[in-house]
Parts: sequence; structure tokens; C-alpha cells
Amino acid sequence: MAKKPPQAYLDLKEASTEIQTYNSILSLLHWDQETHMPEGAIVPRSEQISLLSAHIHEMKTSRKFKGLIEKLASVSTGRIKAKGLSAKEKAAVREWTNEYFRLKKLPVSFIKQFSQLTSEASQIWQCAKKESNFKLFAPFLSRIIDMVREKASIYSYKEHPYDALLGCYEPCMTSAKLHKIFTPLRKDLTHLLGQIRGKSLDDRFLHGSFDPKKQTALGQTILNALPIEPAFSRLDVSAHPFSTALHPHDSRITTRILPGNFMSNIFTILHEAGHSMYEMGLPAEYWGTPLAEPVSLSIHESQSRWWETLIGRSHAFWSHFYPLAQKTFPAKLGRVPLDRFYRAINKVTPSLIRVEADEVTYCLHVILRFELESALLSGDLQVYDLPEAWREKMKELLGVAPKNDREGCLQDIHWALGDFGYFPTYALGNLFAAHFFNAFAKQHPDWEKRLSSGDLAFVRDWLKTNIHSFGKQYDSEQLAKKVTGKPFSEEAYCRYLKNKYSDIYRL
Amino acid sequence: MAKKPPQAYLDLKEASTEIQTYNSILSLLHWDQETHMPEGAIVPRSEQISLLSAHIHEMKTSRKFKGLIEKLASVSTGRIKAKGLSAKEKAAVREWTNEYFRLKKLPVSFIKQFSQLTSEASQIWQCAKKESNFKLFAPFLSRIIDMVREKASIYSYKEHPYDALLGCYEPCMTSAKLHKIFTPLRKDLTHLLGQIRGKSLDDRFLHGSFDPKKQTALGQTILNALPIEPAFSRLDVSAHPFSTALHPHDSRITTRILPGNFMSNIFTILHEAGHSMYEMGLPAEYWGTPLAEPVSLSIHESQSRWWETLIGRSHAFWSHFYPLAQKTFPAKLGRVPLDRFYRAINKVTPSLIRVEADEVTYCLHVILRFELESALLSGDLQVYDLPEAWREKMKELLGVAPKNDREGCLQDIHWALGDFGYFPTYALGNLFAAHFFNAFAKQHPDWEKRLSSGDLAFVRDWLKTNIHSFGKQYDSEQLAKKVTGKPFSEEAYCRYLKNKYSDIYRL
Repeated sequence: MAKKPPQAYLDLKEASTEIQTYNSILSLLHWDQETHMPEGAIVPRSEQISLLSAHIHEMKTSRKFKGLIEKLASVSTGRIKAKGLSAKEKAAVREWTNEYFRLKKLPVSFIKQFSQLTSEASQIWQCAKKESNFKLFAPFLSRIIDMVREKASIYSYKEHPYDALLGCYEPCMTSAKLHKIFTPLRKDLTHLLGQIRGKSLDDRFLHGSFDPKKQTALGQTILNALPIEPAFSRLDVSAHPFSTALHPHDSRITTRILPGNFMSNIFTILHEAGHSMYEMGLPAEYWGTPLAEPVSLSIHESQSRWWETLIGRSHAFWSHFYPLAQKTFPAKLGRVPLDRFYRAINKVTPSLIRVEADEVTYCLHVILRFELESALLSGDLQVYDLPEAWREKMKELLGVAPKNDREGCLQDIHWALGDFGYFPTYALGNLFAAHFFNAFAKQHPDWEKRLSSGDLAFVRDWLKTNIHSFGKQYDSEQLAKKVTGKPFSEEAYCRYLKNKYSDIYRL
Repeated sequence: MAKKPPQAYLDLKEASTEIQTYNSILSLLHWDQETHMPEGAIVPRSEQISLLSAHIHEMKTSRKFKGLIEKLASVSTGRIKAKGLSAKEKAAVREWTNEYFRLKKLPVSFIKQFSQLTSEASQIWQCAKKESNFKLFAPFLSRIIDMVREKASIYSYKEHPYDALLGCYEPCMTSAKLHKIFTPLRKDLTHLLGQIRGKSLDDRFLHGSFDPKKQTALGQTILNALPIEPAFSRLDVSAHPFSTALHPHDSRITTRILPGNFMSNIFTILHEAGHSMYEMGLPAEYWGTPLAEPVSLSIHESQSRWWETLIGRSHAFWSHFYPLAQKTFPAKLGRVPLDRFYRAINKVTPSLIRVEADEVTYCLHVILRFELESALLSGDLQVYDLPEAWREKMKELLGVAPKNDREGCLQDIHWALGDFGYFPTYALGNLFAAHFFNAFAKQHPDWEKRLSSGDLAFVRDWLKTNIHSFGKQYDSEQLAKKVTGKPFSEEAYCRYLKNKYSDIYRL
């Protein structure tokens, strides 16, 4: 039996659980807003969210909370002072301390000013995108970059301001490490894309008109077949699909139905269900502590991409589910054999935006953003030169170019929200997933056979045991090493893509 | 232009708005629990609710909040000290003071103990009801009555302990006033029921099997025809129908579908929509203050019963909507003329429970409960004699008798929750509605003609102008007088029933 933690630990856990409970309420406010809230309720909803957010921030940065941490560790150095903590408890204290330190660094005046600026910038961005006119947005982006630089210097960094920003989303990553990973990844992906370019692959049967009701039923059937507890989860529809968890026992996802593309709904459900399974796999008995929190955005994304791509775009998965899809859309798929379907859903088509990208081009969108963000921050690239720089890099990496700003550097809201350093986690998610997958496949050499028979429970069990159950006990690099025995790198992902697409395109 | 309120008023308003905002978040937690929450999430949801409730109670009873009130009024005497307040502002200060005084009276230890007891009692009640065995529940009811007596003496009262309990739900009502109202009401209702008893009225076409999908569509169409802003409201399904409002711009109702009784869904929607229209009609510009709060439970109920019965069971309403019902269920209603339908939906059938009661017997259920509650509190009735007393009174008032405890004194959860003094508001709601309706009909002598043509907007406009827009500025008796020019009594309701049912039953 585990030893009872010291009282100071229990006190901190109690305070932290209270904060997490408020956080879970905040999640419900967001979820409701995107799914069921009457549209006219946006003003009171904003007030609810802003009040609760402020309350949470206050509690997290309160003198009282600091006092509770300081009974266990030094807030300034992170050194653990308390005796008798288990390894898990030490990890929890480390995370509490880091989080407090990080939160306290940014002055409240900075947070308010930044929030005001990004709120204005988001509105202007919408307008600028609509008119496809970057010049409208440029002055705001300049001010955001100034503040982001200030944020980086407040957080402080050793080598590159980008390191401080990365730290907000993927704490163990640095600009230098990313360069080391992205350089060979960039090379391999552009090489693979070069080999594929010009090869034709017929996927016309995936496009056309697909009855939304049938799409909904197919998506729900596939979701029901996933090893998810229905008592702890639910599926809704929203304009932009997302997943949110109030608690390991209350995890919710959304999808959207595109009449012209039925696979979009399936991939969305698999993606969000991957996020959801991670949250449901966190150990509920530690809820309220970092031991029941996800490691990082990258690891979260590794779980969604795992189910969406490694599983959901695999031949084995569709060996089981394809007959169901054929039965749902017989006119379109009835005469298309599985192998043709499998190749079609993996078709490589360089496009202008990450969210529509196939596996080969996906990370190239991220690399583009990383390179431009770094250059903007360092001053090597001026804001007013961004549209042209974007166009050039798009051509260089993907061989396609946006016709206008709307398709180019105004395509998504990240920069308007001040989210610099966020994008790399989208790529890292894929890389971590492939890295983990090697260990999974070694332990389950018959995984394709089992998947083909519709068995998915063993996949989730493996993820739960090897990844979910640790919460934030390890950082992402430590976890990668622990799970596979090998340090994290891009290798597994590059090898996976090369093997898969050499087969699909008969390279 | 209105004068700017004194700074002390604005400060109090700000603090109160914060509390109300938290209250609105609490409402969302409850709404979600009854409608969409995954069933396995009940434990974390209870923790969210209990944390937020405690936080709200803390804020409402805080020294800080008291200090803000005391700049405007004396908390102990209620006397207003501040100069320069408008009549509305004075009313708001009066309500803030009353509420604070009421909340502070009950010691936190009492609240906790009562909450623990009623939580246990509710579980035991469920079990006792299932087994139809009052003896299981009796010891808990005894303890509840002891605590309810204690609560009454903490709140203090002049004549009867029941006055103190009534005050929690309908502040201007007392036991003596209720007696004055309920005595003639009891007499008139039993007399009317006696005249009706034995007369037959065919309503078989209202029963049978009604496709739930068609029921849903019919209910939604009628809801859409009501003068409700769709941007501020929504309809869901829940086991027990209810309405909740997060804000005048976010008001939500639920219904349930009974396959054997399609009118249940319609009446439920009209009832809950009535509550909802009241909340949406409160002046949003005063939100956060008592000026945007409902007067009392009785006045709330007057609004729901207004739409469910005075409008929703009227000949004029169905002159417009009946063809739609016929079209929805042609096999059942196709050959039934409007007049037969109108009489059938108003059929009087003494039943064992209020929620299924027609207009004539409805208040008799309430009077039964009021008389038993009073006797239990005064000690004239012993808990162990309750089943028999219930049976006797049921026979006396309604001429029917429960076969067992489940159908009798265990039929609903109110007592298990400690809600003594609540039931009278169900009757008062009907009485206030009829009282108000006289003034409405005087102002709109052509209301039946307009209703017959499907015009409902003028009804809501009248309610908004005459009732909703005042918030809590007047208490229910003042409002009744203001709207009609006459003091509140049972007269209007008795006359309404006599006229209506003399016609229906050709008395």
C-alpha cells in the first residue's frame, strides 16, 4: 500500500483540486458556447467566462497558493524541500512550482494589455481575411510581435526568444532542438513529395454529395466501435470541431459534416476521439494534481494523430470498417475495392492549408510557419514582407502558391491570438506518435491482424498503460525515452512515411 | 434622462452582478446535468456544483457585501440611509437588504446539517417510494419536520411557524392570508367538482399511441409560433421538464415525450415557455440587480400557468392550432371537431397527483398539502398518522383514494427535500394568473379573436409591460393591485373556472 503523503502535500492537492474544478466549469462554458448556447447569449457568456477566468488566475497566483507550494518546494529555484514525497508526488510538486513560477512572471498589466490587443487583432484579422487584405492586419501583427518579444524576454531564454515561447506549449523543446529535428524532416518530406509529384491516384469516388444523415450515422457507428466509455463521453456538432474534457469521466468531442466529403467527418471523429481517450485515460484518482494532466500539447496531439492517421488511415483499420462505409454509400463505393479506397484516402495533394493536408505535406506547413515565426521574431523578416515571404516559402516547400492573402498568411487565427510557438506542436504530435508506435508495434507484432478483425481495445490499453496513466509525471522527451528506450527524433516518422507512401505510390 | 445612481449603489450593483454571474454559471451546470451530461460524470458534477454553491453563499454573506449594503441601508432594520435613490433603486436596495438578512439568519452549521439530512432523506424516500413503504421514510420526515420547525423559529414569525416558511417562497404571504384565500377556494372547487362528477366526456382520441417524432415536430412548431426570441432560447429533452434562465438572453426549457399522450408535450412546452418568457422579459439593462429578478415563485408560476391553461387550454388558442394537430395525427383527430377536442383537453378527472391534475382539481391537491403541512408543523398531526390522514383528505377533497403509500404521501420529493411552505405557490400561481387576466381581457376585449387568428405577440407584450418589466420592484400583492386596481384574491380564478366549466359540462 502506498504511504500517505505529507499533510502539506494534501493541503496543496486540495487547493489545486479546487482550481481544477473551476477550470472544469470553465470548460463547460466554452463547450456550451460552441455547441448548444443560444446565439444571442454571447454577451452574458463572455462575462461569465471572463469572471471565472479571472477568479482562476487569482487563485493560481494567490499568496495562499504560493504559501502551500513553499511548504514543499522553493518557488524561485524549484528545489524540493519536503521529506517523504514519493517519486510521483515529487513530480507533481515540480509541476505545481513550474506553473506558479510561469504564471507569476507575466505581470497582470501585461496579460490585460495582451488580451486586449489580441481581442482587437482577432476582429481585425477576420475583417482583413474577408477582404483578403493583409495591410489591414499588418499594424496589429507588428504590435503583437513586439509584445510577444517582450513576453519572451520576461520569461527569459538562453539562445533564442523562440525558446521562451515554445516553452509555453512544449516545455522541453527549444529552437535548437527543433532545428535539429526539422532539418532532416524538411529534407525527407520534400524529397518524398518530389517522388510523388506527378503520379496520379484516382480518388474521385471520395468526392461528390453524401447524405448528411448517413454521414452522421456512419460516424456514430465508428465512434461506438472505438474503445471509449459511452458513460463518460459524448459527441456533438460544432462549426469548428474540438475536444474538451471536464474530467476523466466527462470528455466531449464535436465534429462537423461536410456534404461533399464524408471522410472529413470520420477523420475528425477519430482525431477528436484520440484527444478524448487521452483525457479519459488520465488517472482519475489523481484528479486535481498534475499527475492527472496531459504532458503537453505535442503529446496531446500525438494521441489524436495516432487515431486519425496511424490507425485511421491504415489498411488494417479499413479492412474492418470499409464494408460499413460501402453499405452506407453503395452508389459511390460499392464497386471500389478496399485497396483503391485505402490509396485514395491517403492521396498526397499539396494544398494551401495545414488542416486539409495529407500526411506527407502536413509537417511542411508547420515548418513553413516555424521558419517564418522565427524570422519575424529575430527581425530577419519584416511584417510588411510577410505575404511575399509566405508565397515564396509555400512554393519552395509545397510547390503551390496562394492566389491572395486570404489563402496565404491570413489563413488562420493563430497569430491574431498571439500564439507564436504553438504551431510546432502540430508537427511534433505526428513525430511523437510515430516514435511511440514503434514500441507499440514491437509489443503487438500482430496489430494489423487484430485491427483487421475490429479489435481496437488493445490499442487503447497500450496507450493507457504506456502514456496516459503517467499524467505529467514525465516530460515529453522523458516519456518518449521511457516508452521506446530511444531518444525522441524524427526518424520513426520519416521511416513510417517512406514505407507507407512507397507502397501507396509504388515508388 | 435618468439620474446617475450614487456611487455606493453602483458599487453594490457591481458586486451583485458578479454574484448573479456565478449564479448563472451554476444554472448551466444544472441544465447540462439534466440534458446532455454523460451519465458517468455525476460525481465530478456534484463537486462542481457544491464548490460553486459554497462560493456563491460565501460572497452573498461576506463582510464585504454587507459593507456595501450598509452604505445604503441598515441591514438590521432595512431602513434606507442613502440619499438620491430613485424609487427603483430603493426597491433594489430593499431586496438586497432582505436577502442578506434572510441568508445571514440561518447559521452555516444549520445549513450543512439540513443539507446532509435532506440529501439522505431523498435517497431513502426514493427507496421507500419504490417499496411503497412509508415506515422507511417516516423517521427521516420526523427529523426534517424538527429542523423545519427550528428553521421557522430562526427566521421568526408572528402567528404561525408556517408563515416563516412561506416567506422563503412567497414573501408577502402568511398562513392567515392563505386561509382567507383557500377557504372559499376549497368550497368553490369542491362544489364545482361535485356538479361535474358523474358527467361523461369522451376524450379517448387523446389517448393511444402517438409517434414521438411527430409529437416532437408538433411541439416545436407550436413553440416556434410563440412570441419567443429564438436567438435567446432553446428546447431540449429531459426526464423531468423544467425551465432555467442564465440571463434574459439565455433562457432554456425542456420537455418530455410520452408516447401515449401527445397533449402532455404541448402543455409542458407551453408551461415552460411561460416561465421562459418571464425570464426573457426581465429588463436586461438591470441585470445583476433585483430589478431584473422574478418577484416570487407564485408570480413565476402565474406566468407558466397563464400560457399552459388560460391560453393553452382556451378555445381561441386551439381555433388556430387545432388544424395543425389534426394534420399531425389525422387517424386520431381527423374526424374530431374542434369543440369536442376543446372539451376533451379540459376534461375534469380527479386523480391522485397534482402534476396530472386538470384545472378544477389542481388547487385541491395544493390545499390538501397545505392543510397537512400546517398540521404536521403545529403537531396536530403525527408523522406516523400521515398515510391515513392523506387518504382521508384525498377522499374528502377529491373523492379518490390512493391504493398505497407510493400513490399517496410518498408521491413526490418535496418533503424529502425539506420544502415545506413551497406547495401553496403552485395554487397561488393560478390565482395570480386569473387575477391578472381580468385586466388583460379588459384591455384587449378582442383577445379571443386575435388568438384565433394565431396572434400571440400582443399577449406577451402585455405581460412584459405589466408584469415582467418591473422585476422585483413590487411584491406580488402590490403587483396584483397595480395591474388590476383590485386587491389580490381567489375571486377571479373561481369565476374563471365556474364560467369555463359550466360551459364545457353544460352545467
